[in-house]
Amino acid sequence: MADFNKINQDFLNLLKQIIGDKYVLTDKFDIEPYSHDETEDLVYYPEVAVKPQTTDEVSAILKLCYDNNIPITPRGGGTGLSGGALPVHGGVVLSLERLNRIIEIDTDNMMAVVEPGVITSVFQDKLEEMGLFYPVDPASRESCLLGGNIAENSGGPRAVKYGVTKDYVYGLKAVLPDGRVFSSGGKLLKNVSGYNLTQLLVGSEGTLAVVTEITFKILAKPKHRQTMLIPFNSLNAAATTLTEIFKARIVPSAAEFIEQAAIKAAEDKFERKFPYSDSAALLLLEIDGNYPEILEAQAERIGEICLAGNAVDVFVADSPDKQAELWDTRRKIGEAVKSIAPYKEEDTVVPRAQLPALVEKIKQITAKHDITAISYGHAGDGNIHCNIIKKDITDERWENELPDMIAELFTEVVKLGGTISGEHGIGLVQKRYLPIALSETELDLMRQIKHVFDPKGVLNPGKLLV
Amino acid sequence: MADFNKINQDFLNLLKQIIGDKYVLTDKFDIEPYSHDETEDLVYYPEVAVKPQTTDEVSAILKLCYDNNIPITPRGGGTGLSGGALPVHGGVVLSLERLNRIIEIDTDNMMAVVEPGVITSVFQDKLEEMGLFYPVDPASRESCLLGGNIAENSGGPRAVKYGVTKDYVYGLKAVLPDGRVFSSGGKLLKNVSGYNLTQLLVGSEGTLAVVTEITFKILAKPKHRQTMLIPFNSLNAAATTLTEIFKARIVPSAAEFIEQAAIKAAEDKFERKFPYSDSAALLLLEIDGNYPEILEAQAERIGEICLAGNAVDVFVADSPDKQAELWDTRRKIGEAVKSIAPYKEEDTVVPRAQLPALVEKIKQITAKHDITAISYGHAGDGNIHCNIIKKDITDERWENELPDMIAELFTEVVKLGGTISGEHGIGLVQKRYLPIALSETELDLMRQIKHVFDPKGVLNPGKLLV
Repeated sequence: MADFNKINQDFLNLLKQIIGDKYVLTDKFDIEPYSHDETEDLVYYPEVAVKPQTTDEVSAILKLCYDNNIPITPRGGGTGLSGGALPVHGGVVLSLERLNRIIEIDTDNMMAVVEPGVITSVFQDKLEEMGLFYPVDPASRESCLLGGNIAENSGGPRAVKYGVTKDYVYGLKAVLPDGRVFSSGGKLLKNVSGYNLTQLLVGSEGTLAVVTEITFKILAKPKHRQTMLIPFNSLNAAATTLTEIFKARIVPSAAEFIEQAAIKAAEDKFERKFPYSDSAALLLLEIDGNYPEILEAQAERIGEICLAGNAVDVFVADSPDKQAELWDTRRKIGEAVKSIAPYKEEDTVVPRAQLPALVEKIKQITAKHDITAISYGHAGDGNIHCNIIKKDITDERWENELPDMIAELFTEVVKLGGTISGEHGIGLVQKRYLPIALSETELDLMRQIKHVFDPKGVLNPGKLLV
Repeated sequence: MADFNKINQDFLNLLKQIIGDKYVLTDKFDIEPYSHDETEDLVYYPEVAVKPQTTDEVSAILKLCYDNNIPITPRGGGTGLSGGALPVHGGVVLSLERLNRIIEIDTDNMMAVVEPGVITSVFQDKLEEMGLFYPVDPASRESCLLGGNIAENSGGPRAVKYGVTKDYVYGLKAVLPDGRVFSSGGKLLKNVSGYNLTQLLVGSEGTLAVVTEITFKILAKPKHRQTMLIPFNSLNAAATTLTEIFKARIVPSAAEFIEQAAIKAAEDKFERKFPYSDSAALLLLEIDGNYPEILEAQAERIGEICLAGNAVDVFVADSPDKQAELWDTRRKIGEAVKSIAPYKEEDTVVPRAQLPALVEKIKQITAKHDITAISYGHAGDGNIHCNIIKKDITDERWENELPDMIAELFTEVVKLGGTISGEHGIGLVQKRYLPIALSETELDLMRQIKHVFDPKGVLNPGKLLV
């Protein structure tokens, strides 16, 4: 890692000249919100947090940092789960929160142009009002920023039918660490004019450039939705049944999986009974479309397949209220599991049909260490959030055994054709494990690509690549 | 450009050791097929053409060329339209035609693993037999190879609904110029574990690495299709009506545009009458889905919108035979226009709604030079194949004025938010124009990325980047 400089008063004055005193924060109280994200209990204070409002300001700040060898960490909504926005080397946190304009919703071309500081749900809601749809739906939608979604290639439950962030990004404006601004792509459904820098930046976790404008493809909003909750007496039955649904050529708009321990955790936390909490596993399925009669037929077919697959019951929520209730249950389960401390969440992803094998491996590996694992997540796309809970073992064993156990788990994930992060990113906390998923050749290429974009290594240092 | 070495007998012997005498071709007659593609009349002979069958063989050949500073040009089906597969510096042509296995069609995960030498239509037909679907459908489908589709990020008429090659590529195995083999991605719908090397390789025109295995997402085949041919008395009416169809939230599975001059060219060539050849422009629309009653309703709605938009007629082809006839007409038009020599085809792409403006600009610019332009193509995704025909001007004017005229045309395309190639690539013949579409910063990043993958510049030299 390069030797970075510390920030002095002259540097602060230059920052203030660029964006004004008000948006250059150095008081401990003011910078506290920029010292952590949603990743466990990690805290790293920046020396200064800055809040520019334009691409030109972002460019000037980056150039200043670059010229002075000051580390600079871009930040969206601070909802990350891999520590990507933590200023681990101090320096500047560059918050994109004030680049928050929805610049254009272009219904002729079905594209939207936005700034990275727009909150994901604000964008979704604005589109919905117009009968439009942006399907990427991270759990943190009400506080995460679209720029952060680009950085982490966010997914969520609808990825199974609608894909992830990368599938909607058609153009970017971005600033290189040395301050140069460039645009790539555009409102173009076809484009083979040079290397795809747009897709290289999506999922690069703010280590290559700072995105200041995004062109998203948008869709028409499906008019109807049905949500189904289906309990099973074994995880394997749930997973096999899900495969059968896909084989029947039905692609649900969401297919979530929740194992019993997760439901029980929610019952404990919220002190109330959750539906079907005696079942080994639940599938939460959603289908959508424009024709209610087709949804009815699909729901019926799904019901038949589930019952043939030994489902205990098939509960269909056909009103928006009942649907919201089911999704609320799903969210509460996530919340409840996360509240059991100490815990660590892994964002494993495997080919969809390997899901039962993955959950089985998780159980085997954690059991060896007397550690509890609670799994739930996006079964439709093979992305399981595996929550590792300390429970009864000593602090010493937890500290000593956890890294090896995670390495062992990731090794099995890779053997199943999977990888170590589906949507949370590598950031700070997973980078030690990246060599499990990637070959030395891939890592070498990535390190060299990083060097092309950021030869001094000032942009989001200490992240992604070891 | 690096000083390359010439191939000598020792080098040929080493090649023969790797893949056997039979697959190392040096006779002029044998290598003639590798001296051209479908780009105008360009001919460049390689010194040798090799036909490996495995990734290991590809790796050994690349390493040998790299170590000996011999240029090496990968080649798919030789159907390219930008000269990407032409060995402009001589050396080795590396044909991927014998890596032609469909390795796996995995219906549990809805992914297929194939080698790059599989003919696109062979893959499509194999899937179709199983009720499956790979929607990317380049006009050369019966002779182009999937590896070439990766190189050029191929599209075709269905991109408007189904996207292009990049939207289906989830994993790659590839060989670097120095012989190192790596895999990226996999059967994973979500993946944020390092930079997206997969997407960086798609559309890189064989300049970064040689792809030897591809993991494609596949779909269920829509059960029903309807095709409609709609004549208009003005191009503007056709384009405006198409926008209205999208605004009605109908996404056709294809939306082709043909201007009158193209139909007339087909009538001349094939000496027969084509339907609606007196109309200024035709739209050829296709809709698909699983429910015939919905298609009926959509077709009816499209018909209403078209008539409201001053369509002359609305012809619906609801039987497979009639549909095939319409598509045959579309293909014949392409063929007919291409047969008018000398001509040059440009693969312009703009945001869909800018189509009328683009066609207008094409007419203005070519008229100034007394050159004829005939346009047709994929209106649904803004990708218009603009065919520039010499006709009555002198050879001297044609030679002198063509490059400037193309530059002027591309400048206008970029002003409309477009770019210079939608699906044919930059290759050899468009690289002089690339700085019109890309900034110096983008070009600088791309040149450096090229250097990361190919520090000696031996892989497909003289292509894409100036």
